[in-house]
Amino acid sequence: MLRFPKFKFPAACMAIACTALAPAVLACTSLLYGDSNNQFYAGRTLELPMELPYKVSYYPAGTTFGSQADKHHVLEFTGQNAFLSIGMPDPVSGDVKVVEGVNEKGLTFSLLAFSSAEGPVDMVDNTQAVLSAIDLGEWTLSQFDTVAEVKEALEEQPVMVTSLLPLGLMKTPFHYALHDATGKSIVIEFANGEKNVIDNPLGVMTNGPEFSWHMTNMNNYTFMSNIDQSKLEINGVKLEQPDSGIATAGLPASNTSVGRFVRAVYYSHFAEKADDADSAITTLSHVMNNFDRPRGITIDNRFRDSIENITAPGVNHNRVYTSEYTTWISLTNLQKRQLYIRTYDSLNYIRFDLDDLTDVEEIRHVELKDVASGPSNATAALNP
Amino acid sequence: MLRFPKFKFPAACMAIACTALAPAVLACTSLLYGDSNNQFYAGRTLELPMELPYKVSYYPAGTTFGSQADKHHVLEFTGQNAFLSIGMPDPVSGDVKVVEGVNEKGLTFSLLAFSSAEGPVDMVDNTQAVLSAIDLGEWTLSQFDTVAEVKEALEEQPVMVTSLLPLGLMKTPFHYALHDATGKSIVIEFANGEKNVIDNPLGVMTNGPEFSWHMTNMNNYTFMSNIDQSKLEINGVKLEQPDSGIATAGLPASNTSVGRFVRAVYYSHFAEKADDADSAITTLSHVMNNFDRPRGITIDNRFRDSIENITAPGVNHNRVYTSEYTTWISLTNLQKRQLYIRTYDSLNYIRFDLDDLTDVEEIRHVELKDVASGPSNATAALNP
Amino acid sequence: MLRFPKFKFPAACMAIACTALAPAVLACTSLLYGDSNNQFYAGRTLELPMELPYKVSYYPAGTTFGSQADKHHVLEFTGQNAFLSIGMPDPVSGDVKVVEGVNEKGLTFSLLAFSSAEGPVDMVDNTQAVLSAIDLGEWTLSQFDTVAEVKEALEEQPVMVTSLLPLGLMKTPFHYALHDATGKSIVIEFANGEKNVIDNPLGVMTNGPEFSWHMTNMNNYTFMSNIDQSKLEINGVKLEQPDSGIATAGLPASNTSVGRFVRAVYYSHFAEKADDADSAITTLSHVMNNFDRPRGITIDNRFRDSIENITAPGVNHNRVYTSEYTTWISLTNLQKRQLYIRTYDSLNYIRFDLDDLTDVEEIRHVELKDVASGPSNATAALNP
Amino acid sequence: MLRFPKFKFPAACMAIACTALAPAVLACTSLLYGDSNNQFYAGRTLELPMELPYKVSYYPAGTTFGSQADKHHVLEFTGQNAFLSIGMPDPVSGDVKVVEGVNEKGLTFSLLAFSSAEGPVDMVDNTQAVLSAIDLGEWTLSQFDTVAEVKEALEEQPVMVTSLLPLGLMKTPFHYALHDATGKSIVIEFANGEKNVIDNPLGVMTNGPEFSWHMTNMNNYTFMSNIDQSKLEINGVKLEQPDSGIATAGLPASNTSVGRFVRAVYYSHFAEKADDADSAITTLSHVMNNFDRPRGITIDNRFRDSIENITAPGVNHNRVYTSEYTTWISLTNLQKRQLYIRTYDSLNYIRFDLDDLTDVEEIRHVELKDVASGPSNATAALNP
Repeated sequence: MLRFPKFKFPAACMAIACTALAPAVLACTSLLYGDSNNQFYAGRTLELPMELPYKVSYYPAGTTFGSQADKHHVLEFTGQNAFLSIGMPDPVSGDVKVVEGVNEKGLTFSLLAFSSAEGPVDMVDNTQAVLSAIDLGEWTLSQFDTVAEVKEALEEQPVMVTSLLPLGLMKTPFHYALHDATGKSIVIEFANGEKNVIDNPLGVMTNGPEFSWHMTNMNNYTFMSNIDQSKLEINGVKLEQPDSGIATAGLPASNTSVGRFVRAVYYSHFAEKADDADSAITTLSHVMNNFDRPRGITIDNRFRDSIENITAPGVNHNRVYTSEYTTWISLTNLQKRQLYIRTYDSLNYIRFDLDDLTDVEEIRHVELKDVASGPSNATAALNP
Repeated sequence: MLRFPKFKFPAACMAIACTALAPAVLACTSLLYGDSNNQFYAGRTLELPMELPYKVSYYPAGTTFGSQADKHHVLEFTGQNAFLSIGMPDPVSGDVKVVEGVNEKGLTFSLLAFSSAEGPVDMVDNTQAVLSAIDLGEWTLSQFDTVAEVKEALEEQPVMVTSLLPLGLMKTPFHYALHDATGKSIVIEFANGEKNVIDNPLGVMTNGPEFSWHMTNMNNYTFMSNIDQSKLEINGVKLEQPDSGIATAGLPASNTSVGRFVRAVYYSHFAEKADDADSAITTLSHVMNNFDRPRGITIDNRFRDSIENITAPGVNHNRVYTSEYTTWISLTNLQKRQLYIRTYDSLNYIRFDLDDLTDVEEIRHVELKDVASGPSNATAALNP
Repeated sequence: MLRFPKFKFPAACMAIACTALAPAVLACTSLLYGDSNNQFYAGRTLELPMELPYKVSYYPAGTTFGSQADKHHVLEFTGQNAFLSIGMPDPVSGDVKVVEGVNEKGLTFSLLAFSSAEGPVDMVDNTQAVLSAIDLGEWTLSQFDTVAEVKEALEEQPVMVTSLLPLGLMKTPFHYALHDATGKSIVIEFANGEKNVIDNPLGVMTNGPEFSWHMTNMNNYTFMSNIDQSKLEINGVKLEQPDSGIATAGLPASNTSVGRFVRAVYYSHFAEKADDADSAITTLSHVMNNFDRPRGITIDNRFRDSIENITAPGVNHNRVYTSEYTTWISLTNLQKRQLYIRTYDSLNYIRFDLDDLTDVEEIRHVELKDVASGPSNATAALNP
Repeated sequence: MLRFPKFKFPAACMAIACTALAPAVLACTSLLYGDSNNQFYAGRTLELPMELPYKVSYYPAGTTFGSQADKHHVLEFTGQNAFLSIGMPDPVSGDVKVVEGVNEKGLTFSLLAFSSAEGPVDMVDNTQAVLSAIDLGEWTLSQFDTVAEVKEALEEQPVMVTSLLPLGLMKTPFHYALHDATGKSIVIEFANGEKNVIDNPLGVMTNGPEFSWHMTNMNNYTFMSNIDQSKLEINGVKLEQPDSGIATAGLPASNTSVGRFVRAVYYSHFAEKADDADSAITTLSHVMNNFDRPRGITIDNRFRDSIENITAPGVNHNRVYTSEYTTWISLTNLQKRQLYIRTYDSLNYIRFDLDDLTDVEEIRHVELKDVASGPSNATAALNP
């Protein structure tokens, strides 16, 4: 639980937020792209069948945080690094939880849905302070500079996968992708009762199944190449593909977590290495556009599945179906600590510059919807 | 040939332009999207392995045009409708030729690469005025209100597929997709020596092979549905796809003309019917993002193929390969006569409003690169 | 109409035969395979949702035939070559029509379903003898040695696509694939009112759409290669496919005519060139096994479609669906004039040797079902 | 090690056998098919890039066996059940090891390549008798009636994954699929240092990765259905697939273990439930034909990979490549204890009847190559 003053949160909104955190209806693609100067850029989508009251927040260094896991003592920590984040309210407390963020050292954090998350059994004495998994964003962004530091710290720090709802419901159904300015990535995943902190040299993460399953699956795509094989002669017949683009023919077309993982590896790896930061961000934007899922493109029967699907609005003129769509996309320049966000209802990106907030000494929040269609540089909204 | 004063065109630029018109390296996706109010919106990408000096142009009603096909008398015509367009210089004359445009009645025109274009043999007396196919954009946008009118007029008007270069090289290697504000579409295609003007109820066009081939190919996708089939029980085993998005699993993954055609039908048809124009444009933007091809994603050996590939710059740090990429995307609101353009180097869209130019009485051009990163409403650049 | 004595044909059986000839429910794959000695072997499947009273027949040289197309004079011809065939009774006359056959010069003929067959309008004077398309098998096998001869003869000989049923129903809905001992193949196809005799250097034919559509479609498979790309290193991650067989990942999985055409090109081209005839036949058998469609693998609603689907028996325990399955597969050694047949109900192939029938001087028929499970050399059944 | 007299084994042959057991070049598909009377039939392919001296063997009840794992005491056991098997010589001892078999109770055993097999660390006292994993075939077929019995026995019996070669090379790189006459299946798999005995309700097994990976992968195929969706209307355009077979369009086309697993589930589940044993066996033969891989269809660079690939003969006329092909296919009737085998060089199946060997009181072997092309009932070869 955070130590800064609680803001009120209407019950209806909480209900929505609650359902939004449910695993079956939240999908995400996170990837890391490097330019030709070894500078790195993180792209990330978030898919939900509904809108949530997202906040863009700034946390200065020196902010104090607290995390409580069930009956354990509160883990208190003070921020070493300022960070920018996109957050979602906790369904019960209303506290803002980090979904995506970048800190002043260029460490990024992405919370991604993982329905089968299952942490270790609680064997820790209640008098010991334990980190609640839902607070991993605040803890990593505020405390560490690199994924290596995070990895080392997690060897010591107990983390518990607590329930997000009363009665033990919804065991924090997420896993976590982190990238840093040196181009290293890790995944933090609680699966089968174990805490796994795994190096992620491909820099890609989506959703379930477990990260290790996806990595094994990549062995089914060893034929990947971006070079068009556009000519073939068989028995004297000269076949020729008149168009470019046949190289992607073997990629999976599915928009599921599994299909997106493979394509995210392909796109982040084969996109041209840009020669400067501006080109890198536009290149990354084109990459991420290939993971932009319009409402209606795939739909689910809203009454068949879980409660959260009932809460989500139906697609227009076909109310019995809901559709998971790309609520927003973020692009992060890890060297320049700039966070670009494009929401579903907006044609264009807005940008926040962490470096322009260094003189701000308190936590600041702004509703994402209030700035999404405003000026392209939205930093001022956090430093009015 | 246009009657307005010729502007100078540097030779180097012309050489590039020339190669740019070559069929093997130009790909495009055109589609029509309708909202729930039966208002229509056209999306279109243009892919080339290089940048060209595109111009955004405004032609008022009353503009006089001329088109000359080989030795035939010049076909002269005067604009009935004002129109906005994105144009590309003719390789020889330097005249701007319409690649994409919308007129004041909401008729749109898209020129798309079609390498095997082959028009009728010239049986027309030289003393008769004949339209050159490369001038179809100016002719249709300036003269007609609907695709039905265009279709009717083409029953009478002879059109010739002339060479774009001396010595009979490059027989105007394009076909043409037109949409109108009533939601009707046609394709104009010269193939096997015949002029075909074909109703296009799916509203989608890409590149070769012939339009009729693509329509036959759609019969291989009768299983298309946007409803996720996420559960299956076999022998008591309950399979369940935890993520949404499996409905697209059967779509083609190739970025070739053939793959894009099928996906363009899918995306334009299944995207949620928006309830207002703003939502429609953002929905269309998400649809078009799925046809946004980053540089490097597919690459071709630049020396193996035709001359134009040699002219194109190699991809960064791998100069032997060129890459066809989405140079720009346009979104057109046919009811409001608004044209949105996003270039490859720009993160965001700019917009031109035809209705705000009604008091302009002369042709206006602006270089696309000069406005692409400027204010989101760029109309003023055409009416300074 | 054949000149040999009519055998009786029960009405019920005729009804079945009639429906069997209908296009929507008959599929076939024909391909030519060459060994390392330039000897050739033809493989062919026939798919129907029901059993028909197929006959294996022997026609000696000197047999006289007649073909009548509507009101035209009967075209009479005398066999120059003996041939073996698998035949199906004509729905009205009960005459046996050739579905598959090989003659003493190694010319083969395969009749394959093509629902949109449409021949030229009958402009020929009724007093002229015209070949009915349904008799192409008898005409080509009995008269010619090579596909080149067939092609030449068809430049002169008028052929009409007549109705197989009264009232103009069922316009002989087939096209025809022929191979010869030199390894040449042609397709005879009546489409859009024209008779097309087309060289077929890939040696593959299935069903609709038109042959030219399939050939264009092959340009979408220029990446075809049988070499497994089983290793890939990305960002230092060594991906490795532990199993062999990844080379086929890009092939179409559909069992439709379109999917089978592509795979038939792949399989016939990449299968190892055998060094002797026995190995060639077993290699071909393995190739054809990949086109062996079990009952139930794909099913259709029997009442939704055409009359023939109603006649077909439902799949076991799910009578509302019918299933098209591989009724039989034939393998033909063109040099040795041996015809192997395996029916759906039989585990193993039987063989007929044309050369062992040279002393037979009259037409012989045997019911396929009577010999399908008998001795592997079934030639004696035609020469008891 | 077996107690029956050792037969001599030439060194060259042993070298081949040795390489043949290597994981990277051996692939298999095992599946269980049930008819409408709840009778069961097992199909299985074996793929290798070379021929091996396979033996078909009969072991009467009462046969004594011994299995030694490293330095442990020999585990001795006496057969309770007679069984038929196809075996491969052990690379070092020359003893025949069961690759495929069925016993008199209808229990079947299939040894399938699994390169990453890794058993538990040897913590057992050397004075205890331990089963060597390579002897699982003899042990299960001779001792048990059902997979439930095998599963229960394996809870007590220690099993070790020993090296097949000196110096600790080749740790028995297999996993094991068992089916029984009640239609139950299990998989025995040593992975990550653990012995897993897993219920296999889908009845399918291929090769790596682990069985649990494949089962998770099945969640990516929840859209599987054998019903052709052959009609679709979009914007008034009536699309229609004229051919049957579009239902398989979403299946994987790859011939790797992963692709074959999915297709084996599809084919074994959707093939028509036959109404009698003869139809069931022919139906199963058609199913298995879809897993029949011709030589050359996919090829690997023989020198790039491991030693075993060097030993394998190159494909004809392209000696630098080897090709994994379906060396043989077996079909087993679990109720009637009949084993059908078709080798690559043979067009047709031969059959062995276990029930016809009940009076044989000693172990019998016959070389598979000596009988593969002989009479279709080959049982007499084991009971001359």
